[in-house]
Amino acid sequence: MTETTTFPSWPDVAPRLIAVAAGREPADMVIRGGIWVNVHTRETLPDHDIAIAAGRVACVVPDAGYCTGPETQVIEANGRYMIPGLCDAHMHIESGMLTPAEFARAIIPHGTTTIFTDPHEIANVLGLDGVRYMHDEALMQPINIFTQMPSCAPSAPGLETTGHEITPEDVAEAMTWPGIIGLGEMMNFPGVAAADPKMLAEIAATQRAGKTVGGHYASPDLGPDFAAYVAGGPADDHEGTCEADAIARARLGMRSMMRLGSAWYDVESQITAVTEKRLDPRNFILCTDDCHSGTLVHDGHMNRVVRHAIACGCDPLVALQMATVNTATHFGLERELGSITPGRRADVILTSDLRDLPIELVIARGRIVAESGSIKVDCPHFDWPGSARNTVHLGHALTAKDFEIAAPEGANTVRANVIGVVENQAPTKALQADLPVRDGLVEGDGEVCQIAVVERHRGTGRVSNGFVSGFGYTGRMAMVSTVAHDSHHMIVVGTDRAQMALAANRLAEVGGGITIFREGEELALVELPIAGLMSDAPAETVAAKTERMVQAMRDCGCSLNNAYMQHSLLALVVIPELRISDKGLIDVRTFKEIPLLEPVS
Amino acid sequence: MTETTTFPSWPDVAPRLIAVAAGREPADMVIRGGIWVNVHTRETLPDHDIAIAAGRVACVVPDAGYCTGPETQVIEANGRYMIPGLCDAHMHIESGMLTPAEFARAIIPHGTTTIFTDPHEIANVLGLDGVRYMHDEALMQPINIFTQMPSCAPSAPGLETTGHEITPEDVAEAMTWPGIIGLGEMMNFPGVAAADPKMLAEIAATQRAGKTVGGHYASPDLGPDFAAYVAGGPADDHEGTCEADAIARARLGMRSMMRLGSAWYDVESQITAVTEKRLDPRNFILCTDDCHSGTLVHDGHMNRVVRHAIACGCDPLVALQMATVNTATHFGLERELGSITPGRRADVILTSDLRDLPIELVIARGRIVAESGSIKVDCPHFDWPGSARNTVHLGHALTAKDFEIAAPEGANTVRANVIGVVENQAPTKALQADLPVRDGLVEGDGEVCQIAVVERHRGTGRVSNGFVSGFGYTGRMAMVSTVAHDSHHMIVVGTDRAQMALAANRLAEVGGGITIFREGEELALVELPIAGLMSDAPAETVAAKTERMVQAMRDCGCSLNNAYMQHSLLALVVIPELRISDKGLIDVRTFKEIPLLEPVS
Repeated sequence: MTETTTFPSWPDVAPRLIAVAAGREPADMVIRGGIWVNVHTRETLPDHDIAIAAGRVACVVPDAGYCTGPETQVIEANGRYMIPGLCDAHMHIESGMLTPAEFARAIIPHGTTTIFTDPHEIANVLGLDGVRYMHDEALMQPINIFTQMPSCAPSAPGLETTGHEITPEDVAEAMTWPGIIGLGEMMNFPGVAAADPKMLAEIAATQRAGKTVGGHYASPDLGPDFAAYVAGGPADDHEGTCEADAIARARLGMRSMMRLGSAWYDVESQITAVTEKRLDPRNFILCTDDCHSGTLVHDGHMNRVVRHAIACGCDPLVALQMATVNTATHFGLERELGSITPGRRADVILTSDLRDLPIELVIARGRIVAESGSIKVDCPHFDWPGSARNTVHLGHALTAKDFEIAAPEGANTVRANVIGVVENQAPTKALQADLPVRDGLVEGDGEVCQIAVVERHRGTGRVSNGFVSGFGYTGRMAMVSTVAHDSHHMIVVGTDRAQMALAANRLAEVGGGITIFREGEELALVELPIAGLMSDAPAETVAAKTERMVQAMRDCGCSLNNAYMQHSLLALVVIPELRISDKGLIDVRTFKEIPLLEPVS
Repeated sequence: MTETTTFPSWPDVAPRLIAVAAGREPADMVIRGGIWVNVHTRETLPDHDIAIAAGRVACVVPDAGYCTGPETQVIEANGRYMIPGLCDAHMHIESGMLTPAEFARAIIPHGTTTIFTDPHEIANVLGLDGVRYMHDEALMQPINIFTQMPSCAPSAPGLETTGHEITPEDVAEAMTWPGIIGLGEMMNFPGVAAADPKMLAEIAATQRAGKTVGGHYASPDLGPDFAAYVAGGPADDHEGTCEADAIARARLGMRSMMRLGSAWYDVESQITAVTEKRLDPRNFILCTDDCHSGTLVHDGHMNRVVRHAIACGCDPLVALQMATVNTATHFGLERELGSITPGRRADVILTSDLRDLPIELVIARGRIVAESGSIKVDCPHFDWPGSARNTVHLGHALTAKDFEIAAPEGANTVRANVIGVVENQAPTKALQADLPVRDGLVEGDGEVCQIAVVERHRGTGRVSNGFVSGFGYTGRMAMVSTVAHDSHHMIVVGTDRAQMALAANRLAEVGGGITIFREGEELALVELPIAGLMSDAPAETVAAKTERMVQAMRDCGCSLNNAYMQHSLLALVVIPELRISDKGLIDVRTFKEIPLLEPVS
């Protein structure tokens, strides 16, 4: 285990805070003459100064001249708004394909100073060790990154083989780490409603540690199954998609998290619970869940979410509460962050407009960390061990033969079960198609191409083959990714078995990532050497490479929206209707494996 | 240490809650057809049922028929409001002169199901042991009694001798007890603002245990001293008396507790922060601080406070939030109590009117505990040890001689410093009076009588004599009390030294309490055998005896409002201007001892 550092606690520095507030010692920093946005009382209070010492707020007063000394760094707010640093209540760093350090570097200029991240993806690849690496790099950053211990690896026990599994004992151990804030989203909602002992043991370990149990109830059914899930203990949920969802969660004493991610748009449809139904807003929280690098580079982070909430008709102060104090309260951190008040971490944004929310200056823990969109601090990298950088184990070089699908003896055509990708929808369709047979092998046709999951954690290189439709690929090509939710084997989609082998071997060579081959040529490559999930390059680099990758998909004939996300979700055997895992083709409506080819009648 | 019991936790009973909510097992109790008062969303929702199992809420649904079995106890709400049991956020049980058991018995019919009590008085008499006894009896009750570890015993170090002192080590130890919720009011606000290491160590021990630090900032000064106090860590304050106080506390991220006690009237003057200034109400909380038995018997408890807040113009749902979920959130108990939602302790009141708030049925932890004002459960008594029942140690029988105040040789009159009691005010006046000398002894006159503090903890029987004015006593009488904030020696006030000795000896004989003697006859006696502070009789008995005692004070010529409270506060050497401790006459403006008699000029 690496040594981790934590930020000095309030009692550690209380004598200094008191001395500054009393005027006996000068502050380290004073922000002068701003409008104090008070998220406790929901007020804007002009003409206030903030005195900061030891990284925390010492006092907020009309005139901090009495605690300003010659060495005090004075920042002129010049009548701008002083708002608390923004909090992302639930998200996955891996979704950005960035390390915690580079993710932090990307979001700091957008004013995010606190995130609650569930390293669920790496947990599937590296287990508890992977969670610990993420946790340790998180604690090295100049902003507050709290880790939610992943709860559901594998997502679908019995239907897939992950690199590692998370146990209740792992959860109990993680609860003792300094940066763990609670349990990551409890996705196994049927398991909770069925009182699955393993799921309840994870929840119990978290509750007994006095920490927050994250929820994930991805169903429109608000009847007894939902009641049973809530009775099991999850304290929040971010899977609501409509006003009724948001209201039901808040009424039952959960926090309703509304997300705007790169591909999630669940704020507008739910925030009417507050803007129109006028419910007490304290239990509503904003989050991103998943942000791609491109979103971070081009659009923003929590500032984008808050702006969007305001554009949806939410009062700006209420929207800010939903990204600051509401979040802090939810995680038991109300006296630690989320407002500009004494003792809290000095996380402050200066902005000249509460609606457009330009992020002009960002202060985190009493230091200037970004100014006018530019980062001003270092975000240290963890020394990732070889075991984390070398996670693509095929055991042998793949050949076209590995992707052959044998037809029944003597058949000329076969009826195959085909995963049907549907644009703009996470669920797939379970289709069937009659496919030609050539030389005893089943072949794709214009619409249907091959898909394979290649086992990459245990060095078996075992290939699970199948068919997929909807990408529109043409020519001899293959697209391969080691980001393959949630087990993160290798998903290979292609029109040609030789290209599939070539591309898969290429990813084994670079330690994981995404690549597209056409006619033997590599069109694009996104190297993700850490666990096959993350780059340690900056967000700009990763965003540019993923843009080239998306362009290459288009060049190969795929014009789907979010085409790469569709690709990476094809092994997620918890979303209906049909998926493929390392174990075979899975009908997610029945949670059963089904044959690739229908028997000849 | 006595074995303590704690209520089974949510994870302990989650399987059962889930089974009931899912409809696989019948509930223990169903409350049918009520209006669900939802303090999370601030709504009233007609036609709901509450299913209860293992003392907790399993689900709240439009129709709990599916989880109602033949053994389920069904309660018909008949369209009445179902509100969460009320919480008293800060109070002292000893103020009722009742044990925790009898206090609980008195407040349950009023709908209070949770109290946060600071056993500060007994801590001064019996130290950590006394706190533990209170804590243990608290955990035996059918309602939720959380203990705040007293922080300031003695209140005025160096100016008085208490029976015991509380140290930071005591605080750290108490934080490990099951019923401790945080630190009791940190009254030494000058100490915090001066960064007194002992005070900061107590706060740090509490914060490091993840618990709540109670505040007490009893000054109208909202300048740097206040800022320094807040920077020290107290998380709430109940000493505000005006709107500006309430607002200042909430803005700085504290919870503003507004109290209506037997003699505190701080709600009406502060609640305008919410009703008129429209601040976010989430950080405002209602409490009683101190309630006498008579108030509990005749007027109510938190129901009285909520009704009063509503009468002051507060929206009933907001007022209820201030006595339920706001309080629970403050103490980190939001997922444990304070609302009628899954997993929480099933503490529910049925009432047919949200303004008058008649308390028609009270359910605590899933059991009917009171109906139509009558208690329906047992409130078990702790087996108080002899050391707690035998705390009045004078060492010898007192005589009139102990109360003699010698005049300087040859003087006919002397100028004495006199404590001037002011009606309806806690502060006293530092007066001077010219008093006659007879046989070498200073005598009172019509207006001025004698006061003495008799040391009763360490068996010295040492007497500290002085003069007091304002009670209006006539005839030969004495009034004695072992309730003598905060050191709880014996305060003797009388017009006659023989009566003073008689009355003091009488209290030593009965183990403490209050008595009044006139002309050798005992007019009234309130026995308080536990620590000299509490009876273990029911509230009705204690209220009747204290009423007789107050009548006896009137019969002796005293017509002050709250005359007994004035008496019991005369040794409280932290409230200006002049007080008396076991060490002598204390000028609280300067925190210095002053002579009883002015030197002859």
